[in-house]
Amino acid sequence: MTRALSPSPLTKQAFAPFGDVITTDGATELSINEGTTTRFHDLAEVDTAADGGRPLISIFRGQPRSRPVPLYMMERHLIGSQAFYPLQNRPWLVVVAERRDSVAPEDLRVFLAQGHQGVNYHRGVWHHPLLVLEPDSDFLIVDRGGTGMDLEEFWFREDQKIFEII
Amino acid sequence: MTRALSPSPLTKQAFAPFGDVITTDGATELSINEGTTTRFHDLAEVDTAADGGRPLISIFRGQPRSRPVPLYMMERHLIGSQAFYPLQNRPWLVVVAERRDSVAPEDLRVFLAQGHQGVNYHRGVWHHPLLVLEPDSDFLIVDRGGTGMDLEEFWFREDQKIFEII
Repeated sequence: MTRALSPSPLTKQAFAPFGDVITTDGATELSINEGTTTRFHDLAEVDTAADGGRPLISIFRGQPRSRPVPLYMMERHLIGSQAFYPLQNRPWLVVVAERRDSVAPEDLRVFLAQGHQGVNYHRGVWHHPLLVLEPDSDFLIVDRGGTGMDLEEFWFREDQKIFEII
Repeated sequence: MTRALSPSPLTKQAFAPFGDVITTDGATELSINEGTTTRFHDLAEVDTAADGGRPLISIFRGQPRSRPVPLYMMERHLIGSQAFYPLQNRPWLVVVAERRDSVAPEDLRVFLAQGHQGVNYHRGVWHHPLLVLEPDSDFLIVDRGGTGMDLEEFWFREDQKIFEII
């Protein structure tokens, strides 16, 4: 049994329980470099220092899944934040759920991020792995490096409803 | 008196004394997310923890300077690295100098970065403020936040040769 979900627009207010929207919209603007540069300042709460962690910069290259996209698992990082920023100005999908021990399919929230919007998942926030809409979609990533694998996965049971993004 | 400089291609090898080139080329590749994502892993040495610092994510929007570009000052951050990644796949200019107490105009190294190349200036590396070639050129920035202003500027004397990028 499946049920269709359609994404909501990604806004700072709607995303606040899950993390930061990384965007120039509404940011603190500083004029620097003799007036040749505007700095949109401090757009995400990077939280990577716990347990001897350090911030990493990586690039993710994502491939689209078949549509509609079935949502059968979620993941989270308990000791580090994870930021994604799109590098080709392409819209992409963000799926999150409240910070509880487990996830129910009904908890899923689906957002359509614009190509000038990144997100930073706060520690412990359930999120779906990267969902892009076009082949070879690149993102700059800022997340935690350190000892141990900071990844928890939650797979829905076979008898649970599966939601699909249409 | 001015002297013209033309930029060299930006390569990891040539840039190694100054910092990291952030690029998928030559990176460690990990397949994640059920094979739908390639992670180009750990591309820069983010170094923002000294003196109670924390990593910041910001966006810089740069405007081009007049050409040829005169190089009359350099700056550095003594206790934090600073990473720049272009968001519109546009080539841009990188100017650096060796880590000494002061800068001589003859020390300047000028690179042309491609639109899929970011850089991460290591702590204490002299660099020119952002130099873009087209209006409204956006970059994702990862640098250090914390107490105090971690910025040192070095202005060339009026009787020194000024180099220009042609």
